[in-house]
Amino acid sequence: MLFQTVKSEIVSHLSYIVASKGEAFVVAPRRDTDVYVEIAQGWGAQIKHVFETHRNEDYVIGSIELARITGAKVHHGSGLPWKYGETLRDGEEFKVGLLKVVALHTPGHSPDSSCYALYDSEVGDKPVLVFTGDTLFVGDVGRTDFLGPENTAMMSGKLYDGIHGKLLPLGDGVVVFPAHGFGSVCGGSISEREISTLGAERAMNPMLGLTREEFIERKVGERHETSPYFKMMEKYNLEGPPTPAHLPTPPALKPSEFKAAKAKGTQIIDTRAPPAFGGAHIEGSYSLPPTRLSNAGWVIPIENEALLVVDDAKALDFAVKNLYRMGYTRSAGYLAGGLEAWYKEGNGLAKVDIATCQGLREMMKTEKPVVVDVRRYSEWDEGHIEDAVHIYLGRLPERLGEIPEGRPVVLQCKTGTRSSFAASILLKAGRKNVYNLLGGIDAWKKLGYPLVKD
Amino acid sequence: MLFQTVKSEIVSHLSYIVASKGEAFVVAPRRDTDVYVEIAQGWGAQIKHVFETHRNEDYVIGSIELARITGAKVHHGSGLPWKYGETLRDGEEFKVGLLKVVALHTPGHSPDSSCYALYDSEVGDKPVLVFTGDTLFVGDVGRTDFLGPENTAMMSGKLYDGIHGKLLPLGDGVVVFPAHGFGSVCGGSISEREISTLGAERAMNPMLGLTREEFIERKVGERHETSPYFKMMEKYNLEGPPTPAHLPTPPALKPSEFKAAKAKGTQIIDTRAPPAFGGAHIEGSYSLPPTRLSNAGWVIPIENEALLVVDDAKALDFAVKNLYRMGYTRSAGYLAGGLEAWYKEGNGLAKVDIATCQGLREMMKTEKPVVVDVRRYSEWDEGHIEDAVHIYLGRLPERLGEIPEGRPVVLQCKTGTRSSFAASILLKAGRKNVYNLLGGIDAWKKLGYPLVKD
Amino acid sequence: MLFQTVKSEIVSHLSYIVASKGEAFVVAPRRDTDVYVEIAQGWGAQIKHVFETHRNEDYVIGSIELARITGAKVHHGSGLPWKYGETLRDGEEFKVGLLKVVALHTPGHSPDSSCYALYDSEVGDKPVLVFTGDTLFVGDVGRTDFLGPENTAMMSGKLYDGIHGKLLPLGDGVVVFPAHGFGSVCGGSISEREISTLGAERAMNPMLGLTREEFIERKVGERHETSPYFKMMEKYNLEGPPTPAHLPTPPALKPSEFKAAKAKGTQIIDTRAPPAFGGAHIEGSYSLPPTRLSNAGWVIPIENEALLVVDDAKALDFAVKNLYRMGYTRSAGYLAGGLEAWYKEGNGLAKVDIATCQGLREMMKTEKPVVVDVRRYSEWDEGHIEDAVHIYLGRLPERLGEIPEGRPVVLQCKTGTRSSFAASILLKAGRKNVYNLLGGIDAWKKLGYPLVKD
Amino acid sequence: MLFQTVKSEIVSHLSYIVASKGEAFVVAPRRDTDVYVEIAQGWGAQIKHVFETHRNEDYVIGSIELARITGAKVHHGSGLPWKYGETLRDGEEFKVGLLKVVALHTPGHSPDSSCYALYDSEVGDKPVLVFTGDTLFVGDVGRTDFLGPENTAMMSGKLYDGIHGKLLPLGDGVVVFPAHGFGSVCGGSISEREISTLGAERAMNPMLGLTREEFIERKVGERHETSPYFKMMEKYNLEGPPTPAHLPTPPALKPSEFKAAKAKGTQIIDTRAPPAFGGAHIEGSYSLPPTRLSNAGWVIPIENEALLVVDDAKALDFAVKNLYRMGYTRSAGYLAGGLEAWYKEGNGLAKVDIATCQGLREMMKTEKPVVVDVRRYSEWDEGHIEDAVHIYLGRLPERLGEIPEGRPVVLQCKTGTRSSFAASILLKAGRKNVYNLLGGIDAWKKLGYPLVKD
Repeated sequence: MLFQTVKSEIVSHLSYIVASKGEAFVVAPRRDTDVYVEIAQGWGAQIKHVFETHRNEDYVIGSIELARITGAKVHHGSGLPWKYGETLRDGEEFKVGLLKVVALHTPGHSPDSSCYALYDSEVGDKPVLVFTGDTLFVGDVGRTDFLGPENTAMMSGKLYDGIHGKLLPLGDGVVVFPAHGFGSVCGGSISEREISTLGAERAMNPMLGLTREEFIERKVGERHETSPYFKMMEKYNLEGPPTPAHLPTPPALKPSEFKAAKAKGTQIIDTRAPPAFGGAHIEGSYSLPPTRLSNAGWVIPIENEALLVVDDAKALDFAVKNLYRMGYTRSAGYLAGGLEAWYKEGNGLAKVDIATCQGLREMMKTEKPVVVDVRRYSEWDEGHIEDAVHIYLGRLPERLGEIPEGRPVVLQCKTGTRSSFAASILLKAGRKNVYNLLGGIDAWKKLGYPLVKD
Repeated sequence: MLFQTVKSEIVSHLSYIVASKGEAFVVAPRRDTDVYVEIAQGWGAQIKHVFETHRNEDYVIGSIELARITGAKVHHGSGLPWKYGETLRDGEEFKVGLLKVVALHTPGHSPDSSCYALYDSEVGDKPVLVFTGDTLFVGDVGRTDFLGPENTAMMSGKLYDGIHGKLLPLGDGVVVFPAHGFGSVCGGSISEREISTLGAERAMNPMLGLTREEFIERKVGERHETSPYFKMMEKYNLEGPPTPAHLPTPPALKPSEFKAAKAKGTQIIDTRAPPAFGGAHIEGSYSLPPTRLSNAGWVIPIENEALLVVDDAKALDFAVKNLYRMGYTRSAGYLAGGLEAWYKEGNGLAKVDIATCQGLREMMKTEKPVVVDVRRYSEWDEGHIEDAVHIYLGRLPERLGEIPEGRPVVLQCKTGTRSSFAASILLKAGRKNVYNLLGGIDAWKKLGYPLVKD
Repeated sequence: MLFQTVKSEIVSHLSYIVASKGEAFVVAPRRDTDVYVEIAQGWGAQIKHVFETHRNEDYVIGSIELARITGAKVHHGSGLPWKYGETLRDGEEFKVGLLKVVALHTPGHSPDSSCYALYDSEVGDKPVLVFTGDTLFVGDVGRTDFLGPENTAMMSGKLYDGIHGKLLPLGDGVVVFPAHGFGSVCGGSISEREISTLGAERAMNPMLGLTREEFIERKVGERHETSPYFKMMEKYNLEGPPTPAHLPTPPALKPSEFKAAKAKGTQIIDTRAPPAFGGAHIEGSYSLPPTRLSNAGWVIPIENEALLVVDDAKALDFAVKNLYRMGYTRSAGYLAGGLEAWYKEGNGLAKVDIATCQGLREMMKTEKPVVVDVRRYSEWDEGHIEDAVHIYLGRLPERLGEIPEGRPVVLQCKTGTRSSFAASILLKAGRKNVYNLLGGIDAWKKLGYPLVKD
Repeated sequence: MLFQTVKSEIVSHLSYIVASKGEAFVVAPRRDTDVYVEIAQGWGAQIKHVFETHRNEDYVIGSIELARITGAKVHHGSGLPWKYGETLRDGEEFKVGLLKVVALHTPGHSPDSSCYALYDSEVGDKPVLVFTGDTLFVGDVGRTDFLGPENTAMMSGKLYDGIHGKLLPLGDGVVVFPAHGFGSVCGGSISEREISTLGAERAMNPMLGLTREEFIERKVGERHETSPYFKMMEKYNLEGPPTPAHLPTPPALKPSEFKAAKAKGTQIIDTRAPPAFGGAHIEGSYSLPPTRLSNAGWVIPIENEALLVVDDAKALDFAVKNLYRMGYTRSAGYLAGGLEAWYKEGNGLAKVDIATCQGLREMMKTEKPVVVDVRRYSEWDEGHIEDAVHIYLGRLPERLGEIPEGRPVVLQCKTGTRSSFAASILLKAGRKNVYNLLGGIDAWKKLGYPLVKD
């Protein structure tokens, strides 16, 4: 058995390719599928099957393209109106070389959620691993709120049943391979560790020790945010994404060309780090560093093209690939030569003032700054700076009115990355006296400054 | 000025990408064009122009695809009915950043042959380099026989006039960048060295010291071979090649699948080295090692798919890319796991007996072997083994009747690679007692054995 | 937690690097240690500890060099006279970032064998994975014969106690990371699959369902072969390997230089595939293709240098690295330009006749060939060709006299790779009429030909 | 003939490796020599000779190590007390495969300066290219001031004689391969274009049209800056550099470890771009972006170790390699996790205010800022901002007193990169109200703002 994990950075998406005796299958492929074809070729194997774990809301599925190239069959769970692929029966079995794959219908995160248990017929009749999709993560379970608050309890119950009725009975010694890792929005608190088993999860996953009632209550109480791009994503994934089915080649733009595109209203994504964005940027840009690039979905419709400001060719490649995986099919281009090319030609610059926690404490004594905490609800609930205002960053554009004018505004998150994005939203809206707190709550805590809870 | 040569192995094709101030141009791009787009992106430059040196006979041009991706304009010389791109005026000028490109119409190799002189306006008004296409090579000049023997003298005269009237006057200190290097069939004896100037060629290229009459006489006297795939190539290049405009993904075939495809008549290309092919191969395969893969054009129509037997993933990649560049748009697949997978399943094997020069000399004393020399005319003319028969390898299939039966046949070329292909042609035709002379004429000479000339 | 497996090909050695919060540790590093340093650097982590699983017999440990570069501490189990590093107490604990490593003394394969259980303190107090060294493999357990037949029963009992008393009690849901994978000589029948858990092994590893008595009996009954290079390896690993502590740079030799080195008695390793070796090779070479390169240890003392004949730069790199890992510290050089360079200069060639199973059956009707089966005892015991002679390949040089002269000798293994090595040993000894059976027992079985058991 | 240029970024150093028939030579190798060994191995060639173009002042020579690994002989010109290698006779010839190398003694830049003409004996008796070291560049000639002002005229005369007496007579059609490209401090105005010939230089290099007297006068009038690290470099290159002869492995430091090293006085090099350094940096750091990293030689003795703050693993690798090539043999480590790791722990930050040209013009109306132009003399002489003070950046530490206090100080160079370094020097010296002009003179000119000349 040959096995490889393929990780996609910004949405912490984990997909898998497995082969035995010249036959291969892929679980939950991403939109740009060359990687699977190359791995299979390196193994001398043909991809025969693609197994979907569910429709997916946060990235575009590449199954149609992968099937076109390789001739593989696409399989998905029942419960949603997929326009392509074949609908699985619960318990349906597939032979791939010496391996056996058994599909398990485990709705909860999505009505069509499916897990896949893998058996190695060379050694015995027990499963050795299971692909758990967004049903079970290392340290967490999937969200159950996508069908709306009225259905969350019902879906949570189904999720509980799937985990306890179908997954855990596979046995403690079964290795777990989920569809997301640390940092995904599809689970609240996925572990940074990617190696686990059903036994380890049963023993240490805080959600798995609860009774069915406790589990549902906990899930109903969760407050998740849903990026507006998810809606389009669901459509793409059920019906097939727009063409072309390959990564865009963003044109290299000179400053004059970049300026012309900007003048037509094309939005700018600047992926440089927060200190760089703070130091100097093109007015009107969004600050979206690589680790938080998926937040673009809150402010730029995925049907649109965007302009890119990046550090180097590697950063460009990262941005183009990851935006494409989120559904941005085309690119308006990038600023060739980076920001230096822009300012060497005498073009204007904007900046975000940088604050440190020490500086903020000083400022608090005199200037009464408004601290806006843009983290998730679950983070806010664990403790925040006194008198801070909580507005989740994705909601900032519609809730700007809640931030009082005439006082310095200090944007704050966990470390200073999301707050850089938040600061860029405020600047774009014309606000002045805007600070980004570098270090965020992490630094605040390290310094022993006080936190309060609501 | 940024400058990069892009070399394609099997047809020794040299293409170029040059940039200045964010603008770039490409000279004579190959069919798979990602490389130019990636280089331009790394430089932060946009490809604005594609300059063709001529229609080309031995590889497929990638200009249409490159123009589609980048928006570049395609330019070609006058004299042939191109169905795309723009026709150049002799002397037409282009500004690319701080560079100036001047087109020179230099028919001779082809009616539309063009050279391009490059000026660096930062430093002065003299040309610094010239792209010479198939007009002038390092150590040789282009073939002039493509319009048929009745036109060779006329085309040779034009070539002479272009070189002496347009190229050499640019000045000795102009660096030469031709479209082919060592090993190309587009020039008889191109130097292995790739660095030269008009001055060095004027002084040392044996063709450039001749008078016009001598030059024409020499060119008319040359005997070149024209692979049958050239005809289709010309059509592709004037009209645009077949889609898809990207490299094929050959399916990984199990021995049983490979055997089924073979049974339908699909031809097999085995790119392993001659000793390996000699040791064991699948019956009916053509022996086409990487350095001589372009000889596939003699036996397999480029509209067809072929099956591949290769050493490893790198060799597969090489074969697929280079066959695609020659015009083979699709691939029937490759034997996954290589020849070992084939024989592990108990499938039959064929072999070619290996001869050494020492062995051949012994054999000559007793068995009267037929030595068939399959080299080019120009190589044969420089000396050959006594009593050898000369049949150029591409002509073997139609001239098999000239090889007497009932005696051992020893195929011979320069080193043993082309003769491995030749041996595979004979075996395919049912001949027995076929040897490949490893070492060829090179070894024969090293050993001091006698050569004769006709 | 960041985790990466580093695999070394020829001895199927698996080593590991793990990090948390900027601190890292390595388990069982190989001799060329750059890879660990680069991974750690990519993670922004410092290697603080190196954990040895045991002395090792089949590859050279890189711990001294790794410690020198990084300042890491080396830890090993008790029971052998290590001249460097620190001796562990059973149960000794180490904190690495948020992780806890607990050393478990599990003698049996070697007196100092140690396993390491890993706990993730972020999530709980159960181990999540265990490094099992050569104590427990996927599908097998370690050899117990290294202390000689008189101690095998005793060591087997210890191994049983370690597995059942220390490993399995960690819990079914603990992922297993052994020091060897499929193909290692340190376990007889390690699974090709590399993913497993204590639960999966408990349920499906054939050795784990036995009673202590059955286990010991089974282990005592095993017949393993011990390559002579193991002895030197043990010395290197207890005392530190010879310098230099970096990969050799083999000189590129022209045929004349290669010949001169050969004339001085330097042995030649030819890593090309069996059909290529069969087709043509330099007289006196050993046929040692990449997958079986470790068999060099049977015929060339590791203090010696060897000459290399390889396909290309990648094959050269593979050979040099893997020989270095086995203990060959220096290289005499490689034939630049490969075998083609050799025969182009008119140098002589030798060959091995290739046999197929069909051909062998025909031959058996008339010529009474001697079939020599060179596989391991355990393979031979599962069935062999009637009237075949069994001589394990490593024993061939000393048992040549058992092979009758005057008849064709057909060397046979599983697929034709080891038998190519065996054939080269016979040729070197001056035997004539030597065949290599391509396809081996695998092909024989596929064709439905009969097998017998002793 | 096989030929490859090896470029080292920060000092724009060009070295070369050339091979023919299995033999190779290297011209002017850099300190980390793996690249030459790998190229030679890929070509199947042995490096037989290393040719030095001169002692070198700006980077460390790798010849001793390269000779140790490959057995190559090192050759250098006469006139300096080299402690290794062999001293060339003017006109000495070497055969390398089919090539002939002729050494030309051309003192001027350095007493031992040597050029190497290359002849391809396959084609004729004219040279095809020449390695010109620091004697002749594309668009410029070498500096002649290293022996002190009293010797500049004499050395300039020698340089003139070497160029006109030995190089140009080789012929217009000889390709030029110098030891430095665009951006080197060894020539004032080397062209960005790297392709040239003796003919093109004769026609267009502004220094080559001068008479001997004009040439000497011009050279004597040049004002070059000499970084203090050059002295040590000369010693290293004549005597051999300190060991170890391989790249350092900088330890990954946690913020606390980094802080401890800083507290001991270890200097910090921050290679992030000027906007990022301006936005936030660790107090006391030097701003040394990759393109200007060699300026480290002005402030940090090369015997010292430095601490690094970089964007990512690629930037770390760049910094370590290029500092090593300059002579920094060891590294104190880098801030693991980058600046984010630093501020997440609540550590303090400093910043540089960013100015644009528009902003500076506004500021000039009210605040009387001191504009400090830190460019080279030759740049300053071409025009500067009115009332600006000229202090070459390397001289800033010793001339800080010339900058009036109490007013804003705006550092200015060509684009904003060197002025970021200059700003960091002022901040380190305790100056407040320090601005970096992003865009520099380039932007100033683009905006049409006035320049004055002295």
